[in-house]
Amino acid sequence: MTVKERVESLRKLMKDRNIDAYIIPSFDAHQSEYVADHWKARAWISGFTGSAGTAVITNKENGLWTDGRYFIQAAKQLKGSGINLFKMGQPNVPTFIDWLYDILDENAVVGFDGRVFSVSDIKKMEKKFSKKNIKINVKYDLINLIWKDRPAIPMDKIFIHDVKYAGKSRSEKINEVRKHMKEKGATTYLLTSLDDIAWLYNIRGNDVNNNPVVTAYALIKENESYLFISKEKVSKDIEEELCKEGVKVREYNEIQKYIEDLKDDDSVLYDPVKTNSWLYSLMPNNCEKIEEDNITTLMKAVKNDVEIGNLKKCHVRDGVAMVKFLYWLKNNVGKEKITEITASDKIENLRSQQQNFKEISFDTIAGYKDHAAMMHYKATPDITYELENEGMLLVDSGGQYLDGTTDITRTIVLGKLTDEEKFDYTLVLKSHIALATVKFLYGCTGTHLDAIARQPVWKYGLDYKCGTGHGVGFFLNVHEGPHRISPALNSVKMEDGMIITNEPGIYKEGKHGIRTENELLVVKDEKTDCGQFMRFESVTYCPYDLEGIKVEMLTEDEKEYVNNYHKMVYKKLSPYLNKEEQNWLANATKEI
Amino acid sequence: MTVKERVESLRKLMKDRNIDAYIIPSFDAHQSEYVADHWKARAWISGFTGSAGTAVITNKENGLWTDGRYFIQAAKQLKGSGINLFKMGQPNVPTFIDWLYDILDENAVVGFDGRVFSVSDIKKMEKKFSKKNIKINVKYDLINLIWKDRPAIPMDKIFIHDVKYAGKSRSEKINEVRKHMKEKGATTYLLTSLDDIAWLYNIRGNDVNNNPVVTAYALIKENESYLFISKEKVSKDIEEELCKEGVKVREYNEIQKYIEDLKDDDSVLYDPVKTNSWLYSLMPNNCEKIEEDNITTLMKAVKNDVEIGNLKKCHVRDGVAMVKFLYWLKNNVGKEKITEITASDKIENLRSQQQNFKEISFDTIAGYKDHAAMMHYKATPDITYELENEGMLLVDSGGQYLDGTTDITRTIVLGKLTDEEKFDYTLVLKSHIALATVKFLYGCTGTHLDAIARQPVWKYGLDYKCGTGHGVGFFLNVHEGPHRISPALNSVKMEDGMIITNEPGIYKEGKHGIRTENELLVVKDEKTDCGQFMRFESVTYCPYDLEGIKVEMLTEDEKEYVNNYHKMVYKKLSPYLNKEEQNWLANATKEI
Repeated sequence: MTVKERVESLRKLMKDRNIDAYIIPSFDAHQSEYVADHWKARAWISGFTGSAGTAVITNKENGLWTDGRYFIQAAKQLKGSGINLFKMGQPNVPTFIDWLYDILDENAVVGFDGRVFSVSDIKKMEKKFSKKNIKINVKYDLINLIWKDRPAIPMDKIFIHDVKYAGKSRSEKINEVRKHMKEKGATTYLLTSLDDIAWLYNIRGNDVNNNPVVTAYALIKENESYLFISKEKVSKDIEEELCKEGVKVREYNEIQKYIEDLKDDDSVLYDPVKTNSWLYSLMPNNCEKIEEDNITTLMKAVKNDVEIGNLKKCHVRDGVAMVKFLYWLKNNVGKEKITEITASDKIENLRSQQQNFKEISFDTIAGYKDHAAMMHYKATPDITYELENEGMLLVDSGGQYLDGTTDITRTIVLGKLTDEEKFDYTLVLKSHIALATVKFLYGCTGTHLDAIARQPVWKYGLDYKCGTGHGVGFFLNVHEGPHRISPALNSVKMEDGMIITNEPGIYKEGKHGIRTENELLVVKDEKTDCGQFMRFESVTYCPYDLEGIKVEMLTEDEKEYVNNYHKMVYKKLSPYLNKEEQNWLANATKEI
Repeated sequence: MTVKERVESLRKLMKDRNIDAYIIPSFDAHQSEYVADHWKARAWISGFTGSAGTAVITNKENGLWTDGRYFIQAAKQLKGSGINLFKMGQPNVPTFIDWLYDILDENAVVGFDGRVFSVSDIKKMEKKFSKKNIKINVKYDLINLIWKDRPAIPMDKIFIHDVKYAGKSRSEKINEVRKHMKEKGATTYLLTSLDDIAWLYNIRGNDVNNNPVVTAYALIKENESYLFISKEKVSKDIEEELCKEGVKVREYNEIQKYIEDLKDDDSVLYDPVKTNSWLYSLMPNNCEKIEEDNITTLMKAVKNDVEIGNLKKCHVRDGVAMVKFLYWLKNNVGKEKITEITASDKIENLRSQQQNFKEISFDTIAGYKDHAAMMHYKATPDITYELENEGMLLVDSGGQYLDGTTDITRTIVLGKLTDEEKFDYTLVLKSHIALATVKFLYGCTGTHLDAIARQPVWKYGLDYKCGTGHGVGFFLNVHEGPHRISPALNSVKMEDGMIITNEPGIYKEGKHGIRTENELLVVKDEKTDCGQFMRFESVTYCPYDLEGIKVEMLTEDEKEYVNNYHKMVYKKLSPYLNKEEQNWLANATKEI
């Protein structure tokens, strides 16, 4: 079936049910950013395969909304589909809610599957649509009726994440949640985010590619706690281990009964952005509802000392794999056939040889020359470039290890560069350094720090249409909140122990794409009369490419940063490299 | 009556009326930042005379909440009063609402005058207090019963602000408001902010010192518009002029009838932060209420071309007054007796000789040595210092002119400085330059830009406990929103035509205070593939003090900024100075 045929089939089903517009978001029933293939309905209906986007099919027009990471890719993939691209966050681009409000007639009906929309999404729609008496129908998963070869819901076994990695037992974590519940006056905590549940109970699974989460719900009461999950995923041993710390395992769908059974004097705490509207609709009218961001997300984001010790060791192994990759690539490009795909395979293979490695943490982005201008490019056999002795290859990759999750980007010089390419490479590095070296007062959020990273590129009329950094899980999702560094107004303070990426870039369509990304650990700096100051510590260990740098564009302070960073990289990684690799790294980290 | 006696009298009245806590904010019935003396109840009850603060008197403890500008001053003025100082925005300092919630018993009663609290304040309190069943009583202005010599409400005549200054007629402005009302589906716009009303109707008055506003309400209907004001303030001629453009004048208190008379099919638009809870209580239940920030505030903040042309000319005259002051001060300090007060008088006198001058735009802050560490210090005869040939004098001052409002701070070197003083002076200048020279993408708000200004001082563990910049009116309030540059999350984009101050500082209690402040105009920079870039243009013309600068701490770019700025200052001001002053300015602006 072509995309056009899929859309036509959907329209027929919509017509039969008097639905004028049908919305297909990227989410599963847990509002996950990355989902099992079963839930990739939006990619199936639209042909756009990026990780984020919302498709809207109406009886007249169709639209797909996505963010700056995917503008180029989406434009390509939507070509000829009859679905218009809406570039989110660009001037005069309406949200899909505003767009629907404008094009639909009074009394129209908007439909979608209630499980894949959050409470807060629904509330936003209801508010806007009420003025035109547009109604919402959440009953139908219409895609399921036409997607004949839809992948099954995954059924892999879950496993325990040892406390020697996690640093904190599940009972300690549950008690912290209970303390918070008490402060809020809640008797029940409903938790639906897969990574929060995995973190809370120290369990992991294989339900989503690259994200070691398990599809489950959790309910914390004052004296009991529950894990709702397909029981065939849980071995006897694991059920016993969970039970020892008071966690009772129940069937996935039993959550319905537990929510419906809430009493009038119960008070349920949940995150309206993460809880789906189906669960919300089950809550009895009279029980108190307290809405707030999941406290577990903040708890999970602030890494404990054991996790920090672990992740630093994990990053050394990840850096070793990266350096072996760089050494191989620089020595073999132009000599043997290397494509974007074989390069991706190589770095995956090198990572897989490292201790504690489980899988890659996201689909590797390996974009050569103008392909790299697509921020979240994925090479496929029909479009992959063969690498030559010129230009740059952008490689954004990472690994899932038992003792950490990594995410690193290096833009690698393969040969001769134009002056513009070197200029842009250096500008990106200046932005990267600006953030890496910033000292800031405690209380700052990523909103305050974002413009500091953008300053060097803005100076030349350049910008990158995405955030500067995101949180990273600990053997969990490669993107995790609640903190981030981006222009969006965010009130989450940067806390000692948080991990955040530092990934400014320059993307010139049809020319080149450059991104330089390290993970940063938030640490305390000095405390003065003016307050507690904070700074970042780079925990990614891999050289920047000296061949890309126009040294004369760097200030003395910037050069000092590069030299110190490179000194540290050599010291940390060289013990794990062979002689040739050591020599290569010594040269790649030489003083500038 | 001492403050203690005042508080005791208030407590008696509270007891008689079963009120457990009484709140006295800084506001008038229009939520103005600066108010007529009649409304200075908080200063009267507490003894703290700063422009911002909230006093809370309970039957047990008393508190006063104020912000970083006033920490030192408030601590001094509250000494021995039995009122505790709460430093807003500092770690672990509760808001007065949270504090009241904690110390009051269940079912307690909190009282205040409903006119001086906004709709949004009341809603916040109601939400918090409901959990402990704490009730709110808005009936009594208890201060009025004990403040025997309370100043009368001002009754000065209003005058027309000529369109040759304002650049836009009142009918044009009213039509823009009506266009917005239509977009929002509103039949009625209730406007209560004094500066917005003065701007909208092109009128000015003398009701508040330094703020040429008039105490009034405005109501815009689809076909009529009204000004509610004490009729004795409006001459026949002015009433006719207003009437010609469709503005009907009504008595101040008639607003009550107009609000009560709103019909069921009316839809009233108002700003819940600016509208007092008394007016809100008058609105019929069935008329639709639309709450949003006053659109007039944004319209007023974006200066039109005529205003921009005018304010630049106005700043030249203001700069001439400043340079004459600097020349006089530098030449006479140590020779004749000059105090903080006589210095303030001098700059006021020099401004008053300039064309179009009406009054100063706020109480001059002239703080010598450690007095300057109090950000909003006001010299009084008993504490004023005499100036000597050493240290620095901080002068923050401004004027109200028919063609603009000015606000400038210079920290003036009077003789020998310590190394620390020079270091700090230069650091503040570096922060000032960082903001003055920033190039940013359209869409940025003051939240994004704040940390850019703070970077140079943060680097050395220093900070200033206030915002970096505020909007400035056009022959109106010296502080105006909706934009500002501060860490507080603010979603108002920096628009071409906005004015914002640039005033970083370093304040060391018991040592010195340094602030360097210019007004900046937001202008467009280049437009590239990445979007519209923006930058600032300094519209304050007055030299920085070269005697304070450690030139070796400045980068080449920073030196270039100072030299270019000084070249412009000399060019703009020298034609209006005498020979000696010109020579002095030439030296004061010489290349570094």
